[in-house]
Amino acid sequence: MESIMIYVPMVLAVVGLLFMAVKRSWVLKQDAGDGKMKEISEYIYEGALAFLKAEYKLLTFFVIGASIALAAITFLPGATTHLSIVIAFIFGAFFSALAGNMGMKIATKTNVRTTQAARTSLPQALKVSFGGGTVMGLGVAGLAVLGLTAFFIFFFHFFMNGQWAEGLYNGETKTASELMTILLETLAGFSLGAESIALFARVGGGIYTKAADVGADLVGKVEAGIPEDDPRNPATIADNVGDNVGDVAGMGADLFGSYVATVLAAMVLGNYVIKDMGGSISDAFGGIGPILLPMSIAGVGIIISIIGTLLVKISSNDAKEAQVQGALNVGNWVSIALTAVACYFLVTWMLPQTMKMEFFGEGLRDISSMRVFYATLVGLFVGAVISSVTEYYTGLGKKPILAIVQKSSTGAGTNIIAGLATGMISTFPTVLLFAAAIWSSYAFAGFYGVALAASAMMATTAMQLAIDAFGPISDNAGGIAEMSELPKEVRQRTDILDSVGNTTAATGKGFAIASAALTSLALFAAYVTFTGIDGINIFKAPVLAMLFVGGMIPVVFSALAMNSVGKAAMDMVYEVRRQFREIPGIMEGTGKPEYAKCVDISTKAALREMMLPGILTIGFPIAIVLLGKLVYPENNQLIAEMLGGYMAGVTVSGVLWAVFQNNAGGAWDNAKKSFEAGVMINGEMTYKGSDAHKAAVTGDTVGDPFKDTSGPSMNILIKLTCLIGLVIAPILGGHDNNVKVEEVTETEFVQAIQAEANQPAVQTSKEVRIESMKDADGKVKTTVTTTTNDKVDTQVFEGTEAEVNAKLDAYRKQ
Amino acid sequence: MESIMIYVPMVLAVVGLLFMAVKRSWVLKQDAGDGKMKEISEYIYEGALAFLKAEYKLLTFFVIGASIALAAITFLPGATTHLSIVIAFIFGAFFSALAGNMGMKIATKTNVRTTQAARTSLPQALKVSFGGGTVMGLGVAGLAVLGLTAFFIFFFHFFMNGQWAEGLYNGETKTASELMTILLETLAGFSLGAESIALFARVGGGIYTKAADVGADLVGKVEAGIPEDDPRNPATIADNVGDNVGDVAGMGADLFGSYVATVLAAMVLGNYVIKDMGGSISDAFGGIGPILLPMSIAGVGIIISIIGTLLVKISSNDAKEAQVQGALNVGNWVSIALTAVACYFLVTWMLPQTMKMEFFGEGLRDISSMRVFYATLVGLFVGAVISSVTEYYTGLGKKPILAIVQKSSTGAGTNIIAGLATGMISTFPTVLLFAAAIWSSYAFAGFYGVALAASAMMATTAMQLAIDAFGPISDNAGGIAEMSELPKEVRQRTDILDSVGNTTAATGKGFAIASAALTSLALFAAYVTFTGIDGINIFKAPVLAMLFVGGMIPVVFSALAMNSVGKAAMDMVYEVRRQFREIPGIMEGTGKPEYAKCVDISTKAALREMMLPGILTIGFPIAIVLLGKLVYPENNQLIAEMLGGYMAGVTVSGVLWAVFQNNAGGAWDNAKKSFEAGVMINGEMTYKGSDAHKAAVTGDTVGDPFKDTSGPSMNILIKLTCLIGLVIAPILGGHDNNVKVEEVTETEFVQAIQAEANQPAVQTSKEVRIESMKDADGKVKTTVTTTTNDKVDTQVFEGTEAEVNAKLDAYRKQ
Repeated sequence: MESIMIYVPMVLAVVGLLFMAVKRSWVLKQDAGDGKMKEISEYIYEGALAFLKAEYKLLTFFVIGASIALAAITFLPGATTHLSIVIAFIFGAFFSALAGNMGMKIATKTNVRTTQAARTSLPQALKVSFGGGTVMGLGVAGLAVLGLTAFFIFFFHFFMNGQWAEGLYNGETKTASELMTILLETLAGFSLGAESIALFARVGGGIYTKAADVGADLVGKVEAGIPEDDPRNPATIADNVGDNVGDVAGMGADLFGSYVATVLAAMVLGNYVIKDMGGSISDAFGGIGPILLPMSIAGVGIIISIIGTLLVKISSNDAKEAQVQGALNVGNWVSIALTAVACYFLVTWMLPQTMKMEFFGEGLRDISSMRVFYATLVGLFVGAVISSVTEYYTGLGKKPILAIVQKSSTGAGTNIIAGLATGMISTFPTVLLFAAAIWSSYAFAGFYGVALAASAMMATTAMQLAIDAFGPISDNAGGIAEMSELPKEVRQRTDILDSVGNTTAATGKGFAIASAALTSLALFAAYVTFTGIDGINIFKAPVLAMLFVGGMIPVVFSALAMNSVGKAAMDMVYEVRRQFREIPGIMEGTGKPEYAKCVDISTKAALREMMLPGILTIGFPIAIVLLGKLVYPENNQLIAEMLGGYMAGVTVSGVLWAVFQNNAGGAWDNAKKSFEAGVMINGEMTYKGSDAHKAAVTGDTVGDPFKDTSGPSMNILIKLTCLIGLVIAPILGGHDNNVKVEEVTETEFVQAIQAEANQPAVQTSKEVRIESMKDADGKVKTTVTTTTNDKVDTQVFEGTEAEVNAKLDAYRKQ
Repeated sequence: MESIMIYVPMVLAVVGLLFMAVKRSWVLKQDAGDGKMKEISEYIYEGALAFLKAEYKLLTFFVIGASIALAAITFLPGATTHLSIVIAFIFGAFFSALAGNMGMKIATKTNVRTTQAARTSLPQALKVSFGGGTVMGLGVAGLAVLGLTAFFIFFFHFFMNGQWAEGLYNGETKTASELMTILLETLAGFSLGAESIALFARVGGGIYTKAADVGADLVGKVEAGIPEDDPRNPATIADNVGDNVGDVAGMGADLFGSYVATVLAAMVLGNYVIKDMGGSISDAFGGIGPILLPMSIAGVGIIISIIGTLLVKISSNDAKEAQVQGALNVGNWVSIALTAVACYFLVTWMLPQTMKMEFFGEGLRDISSMRVFYATLVGLFVGAVISSVTEYYTGLGKKPILAIVQKSSTGAGTNIIAGLATGMISTFPTVLLFAAAIWSSYAFAGFYGVALAASAMMATTAMQLAIDAFGPISDNAGGIAEMSELPKEVRQRTDILDSVGNTTAATGKGFAIASAALTSLALFAAYVTFTGIDGINIFKAPVLAMLFVGGMIPVVFSALAMNSVGKAAMDMVYEVRRQFREIPGIMEGTGKPEYAKCVDISTKAALREMMLPGILTIGFPIAIVLLGKLVYPENNQLIAEMLGGYMAGVTVSGVLWAVFQNNAGGAWDNAKKSFEAGVMINGEMTYKGSDAHKAAVTGDTVGDPFKDTSGPSMNILIKLTCLIGLVIAPILGGHDNNVKVEEVTETEFVQAIQAEANQPAVQTSKEVRIESMKDADGKVKTTVTTTTNDKVDTQVFEGTEAEVNAKLDAYRKQ
């Protein structure tokens, strides 16, 4: 029986999108200012769209190529994935691109309206800028839930006729669990599509924004001596476009991907809960409550986010950063608290009161639904605390930043050592927090608990994105005010918003890492269940070797991204120099700079440079499987473990390097900003322009690619790696019946126990395991493994059936 | 029957030490120069000894404390380790300290003799400086082999009466394998002692040398404007002492530890080979050929190293760097080639022609001794290639260095980004090389193959150390020439040696990392066999959480070390400033600087600052075990896996950070040095003093702690972590018989196979596993796990024996 509940998350997503549409038309109705403001805003809008257009054109080829590869995978022997994974993939890519497009459009429309609103009052400016952020957040979250749930419903009818029952697949009878596994394997295509686009959006956007930023600064500020955001600088528009491309579209695509992947992984693990409970449960949700639960949390989260955004407002025109931050905090905390309440009701309502879950090495255990609720609390706790940790290591006025400021007085070298060390040390509380979260949510409710912790944390994605996106919008608004030479108080108001935006940008990155880490773990768990391996044993050398290789990938990926920024920035430098040289009257303001040329250069460089990191990310998992197949053509299980080791290596190392780079970059940035208000060094007030400030600027230059390019890319790298693993998983023997373990009668076990029961300790243990394989030619290979105490004896018999049977008989009589 | 072969490695070690004594007296007989030279050399010698004395005093307390802790461990329930581990530990620490002491003494005696020799000719200068290096190398290697083999022989008689046979231990009859395991568990104490001292030598030495270096430069060169190595600078002696403390003693202790740990791990795995072959073999070596082999390779390696060192000579006084490097290469390559030949004969002679080895998931396999030989070739290959890889990323005139030089023209920021990126990218070939080495040596001969690969690589340790130590000796010799105002050609000659020494320092670090990586893997494998767990499954969340925590430790450790350098350097700065201010006539050369004060400051700072990283390294594994015991008081296997996950995390992340930091630091250093000869930037020759050079100097400042403090410490961190795990291992249920797996008759298996043999594919698989535990009160807990296809059903019965039997009967009849 199909439950109505299956449609509810989709309806909630639509409600979210409708609210977004209303909010959007409100934002667009706001006054967009006049003359120069409009003109500049138009440039930014067009530049952003030009980048998206060029990017999507290139990505179309990628999507086509990847689709063909995916289709090929479904035809491989042993693969159970359905060809419709290709459709899911394409839609995943399309929805992610659509969300990015919508977000960028509204951000570039909101910036000038925020400037205009700031001419009247600060509360109004916050209302407009946060309104733009809300549109972005709800758009991303709404599309993510809509896309995933729509595909789930479609596949649920397609594969399972809308009910939890045994059925036919490719002419074979499959249990409901098996059909659901096939369904979810196919649905993984949607997540893969979304995450692939996210990779390019994050990396491309990160390269774009830093190339434009560094290029504009090096030639404009340093060589030509004109101020930041000066309209005479040909790269200034590209710089402002970059804020939107990197911070808005990149972050949006990142969280879109996390959102979808988290819910998907939780559904996969929900399916395994049902399997562990005997293959079916009866509940009011058509027997799929544990699978529907993550989608429901996501759907309800959208409504909660709407409530949260409505609470973000200030009333006083004299408000300072603290009040604005306070308003955001109210919205954030209320939405987290409401999510906790919602999780309580959803979990207790939708899950069986007691479930059976398989714990590796511990067998099946009874888990109450309350324990699942506790796991969701762990996720909410991590999401909230990670922001504070990030804030501590990167916030203005905090101890680590003050220490970096002090070290700036002895030069750039000591400033940089201090910044690196700060980023490195910040991994300590962060990793301990993650480790505790993994351990405790697993202890509460197994990997289903881990996945639901991630789901609960991600439920308020719309709210998080609204808070995140309002920062770059305000930053742009300030830039427009500067370029349009508006009255000073306008810039002061946007500066307050911008300053708060800088903090939320740093904490938002913390949230993005936490979400990526938990998502990857959930995907990792889903991977193990898909492949059907009984764990990933790093004591097998090939697996350990892949753990090493996986650990190396984020490091090399980061280096490539950093070098890319350098190369792209040099292209920009040459172009700006050329325009200054060749366009007559440009410095006097009579000649018009060719903004579009610079936008074009950043666009091309970003697209060109994102290729190699992309190939590295996508190519390595595939290369490992191919290499594995070459060396162990008949041992899919080992190949699956090798790929799993690789995934674990990428995740562990990726999380470390993400935290390190983001926090070091954020710390350098705010150490530099500290000089704006003046800092006390060795008893002297020191300001901008001092040697110490120059040292801090150098630190910030190093930190820029750290925090805006390579650092945030780590999130996508680890998620995408785990997703690729998940999509490859079914080929690696998920449903491979080739190996059989023979049946044993239990009688002898029990007799042996009875015989030995009155002996105090145990001297011997013996275990016999017989595995047989039969190939297409009818040749049989039987392996008998006898374990006596720790000693293992293995005998292999090969030949025709008759021969093997004769040999077995002879062996038995020995 | 005891084989004479057991004594051979010890005899070879003694031969090595005798040769060292001869060489030593030859070096000491060389002319030590006159007047000022002698005086300066005396200062350095005394400063170095003062540091060692203070360090050893502090470490005495550590050794006493650790001994008590170790003794306590042997009394824990379930622990099989013998109390004599404490003696082994103390001797390990003592031998390591002795080796460091000898090495540092000879290095500080050789430096001035090298200066004096350089007054006559370059060949003579090389002969003296390399002679000093040889003494150091043979001393370290000789003491390592002597100590380990002597303890082995002692324990072999103590625990096993000098023969491979069953015997009594604590009143219980144990198999020979079990006795040997207990022996090796106890012998691990020697390795732990050595590695503990190495930790403090590396970290303390690293902090010492950089604090003195930075302090001397900042006040002397920058503030006072006097040249490097100027005798008026109070920190200049501390600076020269630092070269010996860090580069000579630190590297010596590092390789001493690797050498011992590698051989020990190979012996542990050799014992398991014998176990896998049925518990005993008959060979010409008293049945312990696989255990004696690694010691024999180490012993023969000492003789080969002597031959290698004899080949290092040049004849022409007009020789340049290339000829000197060539002479070193001849010695190095010949010793590697000879090791390969020796391995062939030793392996084929000492191992059974065919062995049985357990491969996880593949059961027992037949492995020929030739395959073990191939594994040793893998090790030799890695040792040779890693040097080239390191040389490529850090060598003068190589592409990466030239790129960093170019980036220096746009400022310190771009120089630093380029250096970081170079270090990061260098992990790519390095990790792939390591991964290939692990995989292939394991494929050849299991983890015994991995350990023997490491043993073969380490066989030429004496030669490697001779090449390494000659660098800082030449560096010191140049400093003495400068301070004593000797003729220009003397400094030119020492500069040639110094320049080659810089290259060998970088490649030596590569060798040290490779040895640490392979050693750790061998220890890791030994750990798994000691604990008796059947692998480390990172799909268990607590294990995965510890993998994360382990990955974080090297990052935080590095940050602590970097910050320590900063703090210690500031102490030095204040002291030098004070002396310049307070000592009358110091700048005119009439007042005498208080060198000893600066030496004292560096010493105290190094000792103080090495505490926290030391506590982190030693404390975390212990904390994990305690936490594990708290949460899972009855599941030692899971705690063992958690600790294993932690070890793997530390190793993977530690290797990455070691490669990254060493190579980035080396690259920055040589980018800076490139300016000395002049470099072409944007078509212009650029020299010292240019802005680009200043940017490169900033990069080098960042690189200094990377390459001399935190980077090299990673080696010790990963080895010590694995050793601590190894020592803890026996408590975690290595010989815990509490869990029994009941006996099964094989009949049903075979019948089932016969019945199903004519079916083409397999539809069902079923496995039943019954485990019983009986506690001290006679209460029985029986777990029946039935696996049907993928579905697992677990039933637990608890109560008295009768109750459990009744329940089992009832269950069986279901």
